[in-house]
Amino acid sequence: MMRGRVAYAGAIHEAYPHVDGVRLADGRVRREDEVVWLAPVEVGTIVALGLNYAEHARELQFSRQEEPLVFLKGPGTVLGHRGVTRRPADATFMHYECELAVVIGRTAQHVKRENAMQHVAGYMIANDYAIRDYLENYYRPNLRVKNRDGGTVLGPWFVDAADIADVTQLALRTFVNGTRQQHGNTRDLVTDIPALIEYLSGFMTLAAGDVILTGTPEGIVNVNVGDEVICEIDGLGRLANTIGSDADFGRA
Amino acid sequence: MMRGRVAYAGAIHEAYPHVDGVRLADGRVRREDEVVWLAPVEVGTIVALGLNYAEHARELQFSRQEEPLVFLKGPGTVLGHRGVTRRPADATFMHYECELAVVIGRTAQHVKRENAMQHVAGYMIANDYAIRDYLENYYRPNLRVKNRDGGTVLGPWFVDAADIADVTQLALRTFVNGTRQQHGNTRDLVTDIPALIEYLSGFMTLAAGDVILTGTPEGIVNVNVGDEVICEIDGLGRLANTIGSDADFGRA
Repeated sequence: MMRGRVAYAGAIHEAYPHVDGVRLADGRVRREDEVVWLAPVEVGTIVALGLNYAEHARELQFSRQEEPLVFLKGPGTVLGHRGVTRRPADATFMHYECELAVVIGRTAQHVKRENAMQHVAGYMIANDYAIRDYLENYYRPNLRVKNRDGGTVLGPWFVDAADIADVTQLALRTFVNGTRQQHGNTRDLVTDIPALIEYLSGFMTLAAGDVILTGTPEGIVNVNVGDEVICEIDGLGRLANTIGSDADFGRA
Repeated sequence: MMRGRVAYAGAIHEAYPHVDGVRLADGRVRREDEVVWLAPVEVGTIVALGLNYAEHARELQFSRQEEPLVFLKGPGTVLGHRGVTRRPADATFMHYECELAVVIGRTAQHVKRENAMQHVAGYMIANDYAIRDYLENYYRPNLRVKNRDGGTVLGPWFVDAADIADVTQLALRTFVNGTRQQHGNTRDLVTDIPALIEYLSGFMTLAAGDVILTGTPEGIVNVNVGDEVICEIDGLGRLANTIGSDADFGRA
């Protein structure tokens, strides 16, 4: 099942796809632009991957790392479908990153890769923005690069793991103002989902609601104020958002 | 005012210091060991500082950094007073770090240092454990070092900012099994609290409940299973916890 979380008429509702837009849990059907889309799940720890697609690592002139390059993103970065992500005026390079987001469904501790998928509740699309200007060291991106407000766009849907036939064969695409700029496939993940869960659960507990952003394939370009960015993953829908200016956020 | 958050007899309670232990909001007074201490506040984003005391940076043979070395800790690391932090059997160096934790009280965005303290609700003691073995690069500690379960001990109390006469002159001390091992003073912070709030709020929103762990002074030693570690900060109380083994956590 696909489900989202939207704010409408004074409350937050679970919501489902409908041919005319979105159906709220109470039966009301509304156009997609009549509701405010929130992240589909209440997220706990957000773990993100750097350089987890070989081609993308090459694009950034990086050789393959020994261990998965994992880092955290804070809860303040989360944004839903149709949200606005701010582009700071002093940034030269702001990049989208279309990523498969794995949502943990039950507590994982010291899980072996053969059992890892039992801990996955489902998936979402993530757009994991980066302000590249501040990336002075690839070892682990700093907070100026990866912890901006609205820099983790999630949605529109959470999709049950059971509804995705083969998570290792999903195409990812990003469109900027309608032009396809990024194209990849989860088959090219350097460290796959079971290995990520084995690795992470080996030294920290993964709990229900924790999210793993599995990294982005090649094809990143700069985005500018006013751009519409759409990330698409087979079976998960289309996650849209736009780029706002400092002025939109009350800064001269 | 000092207030804590404890679990007792089926519920979570706000709690206050009492000469006989702890007074729950409903009037019951209990011994300190009769309740389960939780982190005193529901934390949002946890930002931690590396190398923010000059002597400690020297101890680790590091020169002063250009920008504050900030990183995130996940919500799964949080533990309350009297909790047990696990020492993985494969670790050679597990270090406590006594730190002043700053709790944000109201939203801060692009705040200048002269107004920064208006955004502080109060303070807690933090013990920000590190598994040093995995620290392959000081640039930004990886999750194996700094994102272990129980690696962010907070409490016992949240203390209102108004109750701390001068936050720039607080002594910090850590005792391991009763022996003082760490001793410092917040006057030696490389980047002080107003500067940290100015820096962070310049590129991300700090919200109520967000916590800044301001770094630790010199005097770190290895801790072992069974050790009791007490962090003490003037005016904030004494935060105790113990070091558990893998076996305590169900691992052979």
